[in-house]
Amino acid sequence: MEYYSSQISRLIEQLSGLPGIGPKSAQRLAFYILNMPEENAKKLGGAIIEARQKICYCRECLTLTDSELCPICGNVHRDHGIIMVVEDTRDLAAYEKTGKYEGVYHVLHGAISPMLGIGPGDIRLKELMQRLQGEVKEVIIATNSSLEGETTAMYISKLIKPTGIKVTRIASGVPVGGDLEYIDEVTLLRALEGRIEL
Amino acid sequence: MEYYSSQISRLIEQLSGLPGIGPKSAQRLAFYILNMPEENAKKLGGAIIEARQKICYCRECLTLTDSELCPICGNVHRDHGIIMVVEDTRDLAAYEKTGKYEGVYHVLHGAISPMLGIGPGDIRLKELMQRLQGEVKEVIIATNSSLEGETTAMYISKLIKPTGIKVTRIASGVPVGGDLEYIDEVTLLRALEGRIEL
Repeated sequence: MEYYSSQISRLIEQLSGLPGIGPKSAQRLAFYILNMPEENAKKLGGAIIEARQKICYCRECLTLTDSELCPICGNVHRDHGIIMVVEDTRDLAAYEKTGKYEGVYHVLHGAISPMLGIGPGDIRLKELMQRLQGEVKEVIIATNSSLEGETTAMYISKLIKPTGIKVTRIASGVPVGGDLEYIDEVTLLRALEGRIEL
Repeated sequence: MEYYSSQISRLIEQLSGLPGIGPKSAQRLAFYILNMPEENAKKLGGAIIEARQKICYCRECLTLTDSELCPICGNVHRDHGIIMVVEDTRDLAAYEKTGKYEGVYHVLHGAISPMLGIGPGDIRLKELMQRLQGEVKEVIIATNSSLEGETTAMYISKLIKPTGIKVTRIASGVPVGGDLEYIDEVTLLRALEGRIEL
């Protein structure tokens, strides 16, 4: 990219390293940034540097946060006896958006995947087991409904069952508003198996 | 976005302000950045801040660059008597990629658009006319082939013609490798009008 001055080239190069941003988009973003008021470019660049600098894991649930204890674990009004196990911080946010879950979380930061060589020791399972020493009534496993998520759910439930703590798994089935004809067979079978009496 | 700590929310908010990046992509990018090595986040944020800070217009051709004179205008091996007029720095880069153009450029930073209220005084035309006081043999108008680009080309050619300097316009026609059946009628007519003897 010698067509651009070194500062512009460097900016395009850095932006094209981001996921889903190809060389053309990187170029478009770079010129957008170059035409921004300088104050806004400082805010954007600063947010990137600072967020990465200050980010840490919550001492309790291991979610990505910027304080020792995340706002959820630090909230005394939440039910600390119910732990929802999720794969990552985004999954936690997805459940928080429902606004109906009153318990706390545990973030695994991954899922077991023999294909990718990710074993139980590579995700934050040890920390989950340590938390179960406290007063826990229920562990809700909310890993993804993928092969890896299901494997992880199975593994965790086997690990927890001997402790006598209740272990549940979020339901699989037809998404609300979903049109049956467009839904895959595995999901349809799951929905059938998980049917409830009305 | 109270589901995330303030640093993460701020990062997502900043990223979603970029063109073509919706809230979901911003979230994905934010977590990619949070999982980067801290050094890389510093490089990315720094490139944004620095590029914006150091950017300026080339004294001669007005392209975006980081020195008083851009590398092209500063190159004595280029033919400073041929000026290609483009709408923006990206168009300049597109022609530079061909590696075959030996002249210099003039960047208008826009095109005349009565629809958007952009008149001849809003683009860098005055600077172009000033450059023509020097020894210029030819002005090649390479504005886009859009309505605005064509209007601008027409305007510039009328402005320059009285000076006696040769004014040319890049050819319109079928793109190389283009399949005739997928090309619009206006382009096909242009290609016909601009036909050359073999």
